[in-house]
Amino acid sequence: MKFKIHSCICLNIIYLVLFCEIHAEPKPPLKCNLTQKLKDEIKSYTPIVNRIIKSAVSGNSQGQTWKELANFVDTFGNRISGSQNLENAIDYMLNRSISYGLENVHGEPVEVPHWVRGNERATLLSPRIQKLNILGLGGSIGTPPEGITAPVIVVETFDELQEKANEAQGKIVVFAEKWEGYGKTVQYRQYAAVRGAKVGAVATLLRSIAPFSINSPHTGWQDYSDDVRKIPTAAITVEDAEMLLRMYRQGRSITINLYMEAKTLPPVQSRNTIAEIEGSKRPEQAVIVSGHLDSWDVGTGAMDDGGGAFISWYSLVLLKQLNLRPKRTIRAILWTGEEEGLIGAFQYAKVHDKKDFNLLMESDEGTFNPNGLYFSGKDSTACILQEIL
Amino acid sequence: MKFKIHSCICLNIIYLVLFCEIHAEPKPPLKCNLTQKLKDEIKSYTPIVNRIIKSAVSGNSQGQTWKELANFVDTFGNRISGSQNLENAIDYMLNRSISYGLENVHGEPVEVPHWVRGNERATLLSPRIQKLNILGLGGSIGTPPEGITAPVIVVETFDELQEKANEAQGKIVVFAEKWEGYGKTVQYRQYAAVRGAKVGAVATLLRSIAPFSINSPHTGWQDYSDDVRKIPTAAITVEDAEMLLRMYRQGRSITINLYMEAKTLPPVQSRNTIAEIEGSKRPEQAVIVSGHLDSWDVGTGAMDDGGGAFISWYSLVLLKQLNLRPKRTIRAILWTGEEEGLIGAFQYAKVHDKKDFNLLMESDEGTFNPNGLYFSGKDSTACILQEIL
Repeated sequence: MKFKIHSCICLNIIYLVLFCEIHAEPKPPLKCNLTQKLKDEIKSYTPIVNRIIKSAVSGNSQGQTWKELANFVDTFGNRISGSQNLENAIDYMLNRSISYGLENVHGEPVEVPHWVRGNERATLLSPRIQKLNILGLGGSIGTPPEGITAPVIVVETFDELQEKANEAQGKIVVFAEKWEGYGKTVQYRQYAAVRGAKVGAVATLLRSIAPFSINSPHTGWQDYSDDVRKIPTAAITVEDAEMLLRMYRQGRSITINLYMEAKTLPPVQSRNTIAEIEGSKRPEQAVIVSGHLDSWDVGTGAMDDGGGAFISWYSLVLLKQLNLRPKRTIRAILWTGEEEGLIGAFQYAKVHDKKDFNLLMESDEGTFNPNGLYFSGKDSTACILQEIL
Repeated sequence: MKFKIHSCICLNIIYLVLFCEIHAEPKPPLKCNLTQKLKDEIKSYTPIVNRIIKSAVSGNSQGQTWKELANFVDTFGNRISGSQNLENAIDYMLNRSISYGLENVHGEPVEVPHWVRGNERATLLSPRIQKLNILGLGGSIGTPPEGITAPVIVVETFDELQEKANEAQGKIVVFAEKWEGYGKTVQYRQYAAVRGAKVGAVATLLRSIAPFSINSPHTGWQDYSDDVRKIPTAAITVEDAEMLLRMYRQGRSITINLYMEAKTLPPVQSRNTIAEIEGSKRPEQAVIVSGHLDSWDVGTGAMDDGGGAFISWYSLVLLKQLNLRPKRTIRAILWTGEEEGLIGAFQYAKVHDKKDFNLLMESDEGTFNPNGLYFSGKDSTACILQEIL
């Protein structure tokens, strides 16, 4: 999973995150004043739209995106930044794009972090011995070779940690924060290590940022702050976090041994993967559909973000197979280094002029039944989208 | 989880599995002919029933069962048959029963199997390298020290395995059976090793008997048959089973290394844990409430069957605290060795005379909101229960 400025589950999420002002709050109803000419033009596309939908839903393309994705994740497995797997996957997508006749297929260089997990484990030593399933958080440092064995305090909030600041020295701080939705609860993953280090903790563990688990911890990126010491940090399961909280509240003395080999190697050259269908009238103007090709190292990234990447990319294949050429260029971008903080996207924004883009769409919350579109941008554009939908 | 003759999710599941004929099919509506005297007697208990419910739902006992259970599982962790953990947990429950003033508290000896998992792992070697999360199935033998490395065939049904019988020789058979509910799908766990061995497989792996997983395999008991060779058998995750099936259907060559240290040690003496509130009028007649205290070795058994055991046992504590004494004896039995095939229950049935029991209740499907009672037994008893409810 990742930090996101906006997100919702939909077929494609419309994003102007790179180039536009963001409004997170719901807005009042739009006052639209589209010309009849524009409305007529939008309406005139209905037969083409229906042809596209029919092909995807019940025609030749039915199930093809899923098959392409399944084959991709089965072939490459995880694709973390810095890995050869990711570079192989990028090569594969470039070749696959060419084989489908997509245009201007190329990679654009991006320097990405290279964090390596290594072996890791945690063991509850007292009040009884139990293996705790963990996943180190992306970017975390490792422990010394003998691990870190320390007493534990368990808190539910950052405020509670502040109240217990003088108990935290030399201890492992466990955050057993409540699940209040990803967007809110993820702060505990983002800031656990920094907040823990500030009060003298030797490591932090936190309840996975997830509503529930099946003894399955959930990883994600975290960032250190330059003004505090770096300490190892990892996610534990929801069940174990709740157990440790109960034990702590009962006044039991808790000790944990944490062992992590995690380390950060020098950055690696990677690529944003790009393919187009060139526009017939305004080729210099682009509509971008996108998702990220990199994943975490402990799964296959089928939904984070294989699904988003493939529904975006395959939309071009579909148009190509239907022999449809748009007026503007449609560009699929499969971002790299998203999990480490939108690295590929920021690099792209840095080297491209935003005036060349009409619309940017990104999907990265799992690809299920579409339930709407989330849009950020100018009201005039929103009015057009409203008319289209 | 376990083999069950009947099951449903409810506050307490009424079971006469040990002593009565079982009817799995829905029956026609009952023709009841209770005497007015009996109906009046049942009605006369309403104030007592309300007092019990009030105490449990909003009175002094509110949340107490949960707290007792949480404390129990946090203290002992897993309690597999043959383990010291289970014996310590039984001692604890005997002492706790005495401390609450329960009567005739004692253990009744049961010889239980002693299966030990040891380390275990599986690795997909081709078409690419990936660690496969596994859980060996209870009772399985281990592999040789170097593990078993073999090509794989993947089937969805036993019938498909029969069709491919001459491809299975020397291979690891993966069952990627469809989930059709626990009661139906569990046959793949029960018979995978036997069916695999019959066609010459060297090991079997199967999709966990669960609707979904989060890279989390699910264990359970399996039994060998005397007439075929014993081969190692383990559960894999739902995700990995589906992936292997896709790979196999695409004609990819699949190889897996399976390593399991599992072994069966000599049986161990354990106990059914028993506590009572003696009846005031017919102490020799018993109503049994029960759940099992043993668990699998890879969790804390909070729901399988901590929840069932504790709602049964605490119902006696509740009556004791309310100073209520029933006419018949109410007996809590915390079975031992359930996971290995109802060992404690069968032993109990063997040494006790069924005429001493009026009703046997057991809960073992997770303790959630009650949604009904499942009953097996005589129509005359069903009529009484119907009048009570």
